[in-house]
Amino acid sequence: MAANEQRQRAMKRLEADGIEQAIFANPLSVRWLTGLDVPGGSAENPALLWYDRGDFTLLVESSFAAQAASFGAQKGCAVRDYLGYTIQQPIDRPRFLAKALAEVADSSLEETDVIGVETQSLSMHLWWAVRHLLPGGYDLTPIDGWLEPLRALKTAEEIATIREGFRLTDIGHSAGRNAVQAGAREIDVWTAVQSAVEQAAGKRMTLGNDCIVGHRPTNNIGGPPGDIVIRPDDSFILDLSVIHNGYWTDSCATYYAGEPTAQQVTLHKFVEEALAYAISLVKPGAVAKEIDHKVRDFMARGGYKVYPHHTGHGIGLTGHEAARIVPYNEEIIQPGMVLMLEPGIYFPGVTSVRLEDGMLVTETGVEVLSGHDKSLP
Amino acid sequence: MAANEQRQRAMKRLEADGIEQAIFANPLSVRWLTGLDVPGGSAENPALLWYDRGDFTLLVESSFAAQAASFGAQKGCAVRDYLGYTIQQPIDRPRFLAKALAEVADSSLEETDVIGVETQSLSMHLWWAVRHLLPGGYDLTPIDGWLEPLRALKTAEEIATIREGFRLTDIGHSAGRNAVQAGAREIDVWTAVQSAVEQAAGKRMTLGNDCIVGHRPTNNIGGPPGDIVIRPDDSFILDLSVIHNGYWTDSCATYYAGEPTAQQVTLHKFVEEALAYAISLVKPGAVAKEIDHKVRDFMARGGYKVYPHHTGHGIGLTGHEAARIVPYNEEIIQPGMVLMLEPGIYFPGVTSVRLEDGMLVTETGVEVLSGHDKSLP
Repeated sequence: MAANEQRQRAMKRLEADGIEQAIFANPLSVRWLTGLDVPGGSAENPALLWYDRGDFTLLVESSFAAQAASFGAQKGCAVRDYLGYTIQQPIDRPRFLAKALAEVADSSLEETDVIGVETQSLSMHLWWAVRHLLPGGYDLTPIDGWLEPLRALKTAEEIATIREGFRLTDIGHSAGRNAVQAGAREIDVWTAVQSAVEQAAGKRMTLGNDCIVGHRPTNNIGGPPGDIVIRPDDSFILDLSVIHNGYWTDSCATYYAGEPTAQQVTLHKFVEEALAYAISLVKPGAVAKEIDHKVRDFMARGGYKVYPHHTGHGIGLTGHEAARIVPYNEEIIQPGMVLMLEPGIYFPGVTSVRLEDGMLVTETGVEVLSGHDKSLP
Repeated sequence: MAANEQRQRAMKRLEADGIEQAIFANPLSVRWLTGLDVPGGSAENPALLWYDRGDFTLLVESSFAAQAASFGAQKGCAVRDYLGYTIQQPIDRPRFLAKALAEVADSSLEETDVIGVETQSLSMHLWWAVRHLLPGGYDLTPIDGWLEPLRALKTAEEIATIREGFRLTDIGHSAGRNAVQAGAREIDVWTAVQSAVEQAAGKRMTLGNDCIVGHRPTNNIGGPPGDIVIRPDDSFILDLSVIHNGYWTDSCATYYAGEPTAQQVTLHKFVEEALAYAISLVKPGAVAKEIDHKVRDFMARGGYKVYPHHTGHGIGLTGHEAARIVPYNEEIIQPGMVLMLEPGIYFPGVTSVRLEDGMLVTETGVEVLSGHDKSLP
């Protein structure tokens, strides 16, 4: 991905605050501004993005330099790699990265008035590598979280990536729906889902979230799959994210080991209605917390205990991000957001039902992106 | 795991340098000193360990507080949790952690002479939360990497965990050996391996490493599985790590799609000899780099191009750690180390063979921990 639009947005934001140099250290920021799915941001493989008056330099471990070359070939972009794996000396990525950062920053730092830094992600060690190069009297502006609202509006490239992720997610759900059988275990459902997704993708994929029987005694809302056997009258929550090229999807369906009980049918139909209602509320100009309140009201009016989690959330480089559909959030829904909605009803020890769709906000409403079968059997 | 021995070793190391307070921010340090497999150390779920004259306080996100309670119940240990997921206000883990750290550190910091900090892992933001509480004239000692040599000698608890990991690794290899068939793809082998391990464990497991056909044209040493079809005369490298309760295993076998060719048989037998020779060199008092030199010499004397990677390495909380069996390393092999050895021969575009075992260094030699079948078919 070219990610040019992302860099334009970031530049505008920095310029508005008079920031001429900046260090992006949050791996999500680096990912978003470069378009590269380079593993990074960990102590093992740190990657940084240096900003200097409209130009971006990616500092990346040498084994990813080839992958990063497409970034460096773009206007205003450069790549500086540092030594990673070697058998000739101790591996010391933080030290080599610090040296690279100091070299890249050196010439421009002496004129710095205001430097922006993602202080929650940059280590003390890396900061010390540049701090002594700065002139007296410079200002440091923490820019943590600045990109998050910019990330909420997806570019056309990002939407295409997310669409492909949902295609793989749907494949996982088909496999999960088939695998939910009395006598099988939660983990057996999970391996069926993961195998189906990876075989379709032709590569390893990182997947999330919940894969649990409805009869779990205390928390039957979510959790990773365990060695728990599916009972004949069980409901089963499969809440599935696929991370494709760095971008998350999300989705939830409730499956049944056999013929659903009368109670399960009632709950399932009600949650279907709640989800349809929630989707109908999403359009440009709607306020996140108002959608949240209305869906919670819908559950309560149906006579159900209201779910303790969010009504929905944005997705992108993380599984939960802006715009959160939660009680306090006054954010306005805008075209280009990709949002999830996920009402559920939970009777611990008995059964639980949750359904979730993902959608792109359009000029007039939404386009649902998730295509998994959420219907009763 | 109690991890009491780990804390004793760390305390001794800190006291030797006159350090009375310390902040452990590297997730591996936190893991090792607490024995807890708490997800942490990322921007998403940061965990820290505060040290004050023999006492340890774990700062952990609230959803992991229950899991951490066993740590807090030990002598000289405490847990302080901070707010993670909430729907009542924005999620802001770094801010809440900074507040918790300042509160925990506050009373003892005013008497600090020397504070030790893992500066490569602690963010500027978290450092600022305590810096202003320190008295004038204090010294800061970076303690990055201090625990690494201490981690090389495994405790009885750690060895038991690693043994269980190897049991699961062996199960993965059995599945992989069966799945290597002409016409199947690399990714199909991988899903068979991953499913077998997860079904045996009854839970999700994080697995590593290489799962590739020998005919890959440029790098046929390693890489993640792809959409590449196994040919009838292919060799296949399955280099498998299983991370069990935070601890890595490692292992490699070479499998064959059909009857191995004469060349493959020759290579395989030679690598078997090289591995057996390498294992025979590992004993207390041996020098890492001398083992490395001798095994490389063995390959060269056989007339083969010497592999470009390490001869071996330690495992533990990471897949590659001390003692590295590489050309420069003067470390002395000691009882309690868990080491891997992995000679290989690579003909890009044609075939590749690598075999790897894991072993515990004993008083007299080694006990091999990996039990996978590395024999020719």
